[in-house]
Amino acid sequence: MAIIVQKYGGTSVGNVERIYNVARRVAASVDEGHNVAVVVSAMGDTTDELVALAKSVTAFPSEREMAVLLSTGEQVTVALLAMALQSLGYEASSFTGPQAGVLTDGSKLNSRIAAFDAVKVKETLALGKVAVVAGFQGADKDGEINTLGRGGSDTTAVALAAALQAHSCEIYTDVDGVYTCDPRVVRDARKLDEITYDEMLELASLGAKVLHPRAVECGKEHGVVIHVRSSFHYEPGTLVKEEIDMEKGTVIRGIACDAGQSKIAVVGVPDKPGIAARIFSAIANACISVDLIVQSIRREGENDILFTVCADDLPKTLAVLEPLVEEVGAKELFHQNSVAKVSIVGSGMAHSAGVAAGMFQAMAAEGINIEIISTSEIKITCLISEDRIDDAARAIHRHFKLADVTLCPEDGSDESEISGRNNRVCRGIQ
Amino acid sequence: MAIIVQKYGGTSVGNVERIYNVARRVAASVDEGHNVAVVVSAMGDTTDELVALAKSVTAFPSEREMAVLLSTGEQVTVALLAMALQSLGYEASSFTGPQAGVLTDGSKLNSRIAAFDAVKVKETLALGKVAVVAGFQGADKDGEINTLGRGGSDTTAVALAAALQAHSCEIYTDVDGVYTCDPRVVRDARKLDEITYDEMLELASLGAKVLHPRAVECGKEHGVVIHVRSSFHYEPGTLVKEEIDMEKGTVIRGIACDAGQSKIAVVGVPDKPGIAARIFSAIANACISVDLIVQSIRREGENDILFTVCADDLPKTLAVLEPLVEEVGAKELFHQNSVAKVSIVGSGMAHSAGVAAGMFQAMAAEGINIEIISTSEIKITCLISEDRIDDAARAIHRHFKLADVTLCPEDGSDESEISGRNNRVCRGIQ
Repeated sequence: MAIIVQKYGGTSVGNVERIYNVARRVAASVDEGHNVAVVVSAMGDTTDELVALAKSVTAFPSEREMAVLLSTGEQVTVALLAMALQSLGYEASSFTGPQAGVLTDGSKLNSRIAAFDAVKVKETLALGKVAVVAGFQGADKDGEINTLGRGGSDTTAVALAAALQAHSCEIYTDVDGVYTCDPRVVRDARKLDEITYDEMLELASLGAKVLHPRAVECGKEHGVVIHVRSSFHYEPGTLVKEEIDMEKGTVIRGIACDAGQSKIAVVGVPDKPGIAARIFSAIANACISVDLIVQSIRREGENDILFTVCADDLPKTLAVLEPLVEEVGAKELFHQNSVAKVSIVGSGMAHSAGVAAGMFQAMAAEGINIEIISTSEIKITCLISEDRIDDAARAIHRHFKLADVTLCPEDGSDESEISGRNNRVCRGIQ
Repeated sequence: MAIIVQKYGGTSVGNVERIYNVARRVAASVDEGHNVAVVVSAMGDTTDELVALAKSVTAFPSEREMAVLLSTGEQVTVALLAMALQSLGYEASSFTGPQAGVLTDGSKLNSRIAAFDAVKVKETLALGKVAVVAGFQGADKDGEINTLGRGGSDTTAVALAAALQAHSCEIYTDVDGVYTCDPRVVRDARKLDEITYDEMLELASLGAKVLHPRAVECGKEHGVVIHVRSSFHYEPGTLVKEEIDMEKGTVIRGIACDAGQSKIAVVGVPDKPGIAARIFSAIANACISVDLIVQSIRREGENDILFTVCADDLPKTLAVLEPLVEEVGAKELFHQNSVAKVSIVGSGMAHSAGVAAGMFQAMAAEGINIEIISTSEIKITCLISEDRIDDAARAIHRHFKLADVTLCPEDGSDESEISGRNNRVCRGIQ
């Protein structure tokens, strides 16, 4: 009897009918002889509704009370799902996060799972019952209720799978798995059978919709194979794991697109130690997340510092920077709205020549101008005009023949333009 | 700094505006220099809505999961009330029942408070914060979530007051206090300043609307003075306590009416040991609550057994009894719908002559026929036709001059008809 952890998100349990669909799916796994622990989120828009309720009380609800409030959402779902399973004739017991043994630390609303003492869940499974566990929540060592922040239910599921030494951890979602690119943009985007943890993390903008990065990190840390699959049918989805046996030859795993970015350039910054630290400390203190950072030497003794922020954060960022520009002796502050990031990700990239060049050529052939380039070991990101993002994704997907796995070998027999060597064209400070 | 426990019911926290009203009321007590622990119920109809949600999943939800589901109701309220207090500038922390230290035993949905380890609440109060505690819920020794059943929030408040050795326990409600009779029936019904625990228990049908009997029992056991008062104004309500200093002369404290009863008579029961036990065991096994039970000797060797059940339970009761009547050798089974109980309650009654006679005279003067009479130390109950219940209440209220406390002395100077001695006219087996 293998232990299987299954996680169903808020949409999958959005109403009573859907809760029954989940119950039947769980029951099918039980019928196959498995011990099943199910992790569920709050129903549909419940979390948003609870946030709105809190906001109607006060514009600034305390984090402690917010966590107490929000955690009721999953508690409702676990009780209802356990009832549905029971009414189908399957024994089931629900557990809140604290009851299941999720020990949290960190902030009240964005806490981490410090430990998972799943003794009660284990007892329940040992009795042949289904354990239904509330995702997204836990309690700290003082018994205070915490929530894990967005995507927390995925992390609960993976951490539970680790604690139970489960045979597999299935994350059910409304998509079929992880694709080489967003299928709404690239029509022949291909579903990946497997992807490494690191690739999945770099594909966050693709992956976050199906699997939260923190869950991926948790899976990587504990070696939990995560199966991202559809809750609408029984076809296999995408396995997220350490080593990939199949598709070894694939250099590029997928393409991620992030629209809604703003580019900021601090031009003519004196080339002295500590200037970048001052600029980015000021931004961090304003709670603004900076994404791409590129520093390029403009002329002797002066640098240009470029970086991107989420478009929503642009006004706040400019307000922080404007007084600072003069203070640090920089010449000018530029910004550009409506830019987007397109990234290619693949574990094989570091050992494969000409990948960057291929990406640039594909975009050049479409007349797409590249604003910033940044790279990591397994990822190359280009900042381009937002209105060309779909064209860029299609061109790159076509260039690397991602629709067809067999046409992307590592042995060089491919006639593609993967030939250049200058795949580190500028230095990412990130 | 005195510790005060305040309890607000579902209506008082029915929406965000009302939650703020409660917060301001709590804040006023803090401003007076008190340490305040607040116990709250689920908002408005939340509990009923959650029950309906469960019923939409299955007609027979398990008690365990029902308790998990229902307990979310108060958890939402405590978080919102703590937020409201914080936004008014008062430090506050919420606690679920299990977090507050409510240890329960018994059934999942109707459990009792076995112990209240209020260490966290005490710590919170010691820091000068308001503790906001979820009523109606607790956890058993295995950490399983239980609910206390209807009226459980009152019990939570009284048990918390006992655990904290609080100066007072204030139960806020939508009525001004406990009245000599339902003011909707008897226009000049008078609010009682004080009432004993026992009287309050006997007045359950009056009292249950303002204070649950289990809370009264808990108060009696731990000597907690309970102040039942209005959440709409600051006038004092009714103190429920062991000894009553004022109104010592009052023989009758109040009148309770219970409509919606059915009378059942098993006629010609052989006068043998064990027959009554068989009849009432069968009824109990069908989960039917029996109220008044009167056994009267009809003729030699045969008894009549009369009792009442809630009208809703009549068909079920008859179904249980019909086969049994023949089995025990009884002659006939009668039933009568649309009967009601009218009761007078008073601790002084046992030592006061002619109370029962006075009650019967008052009804006789109105032409009201008495079907069954049953008495306890501090209560006399008559079963009458349901359509005369209001007339009976008014006549008895007038007879004992309950509207005016000064006209009910014990010294006999009153010209009322309290003169008879036969205040035990039949034996209640109850």
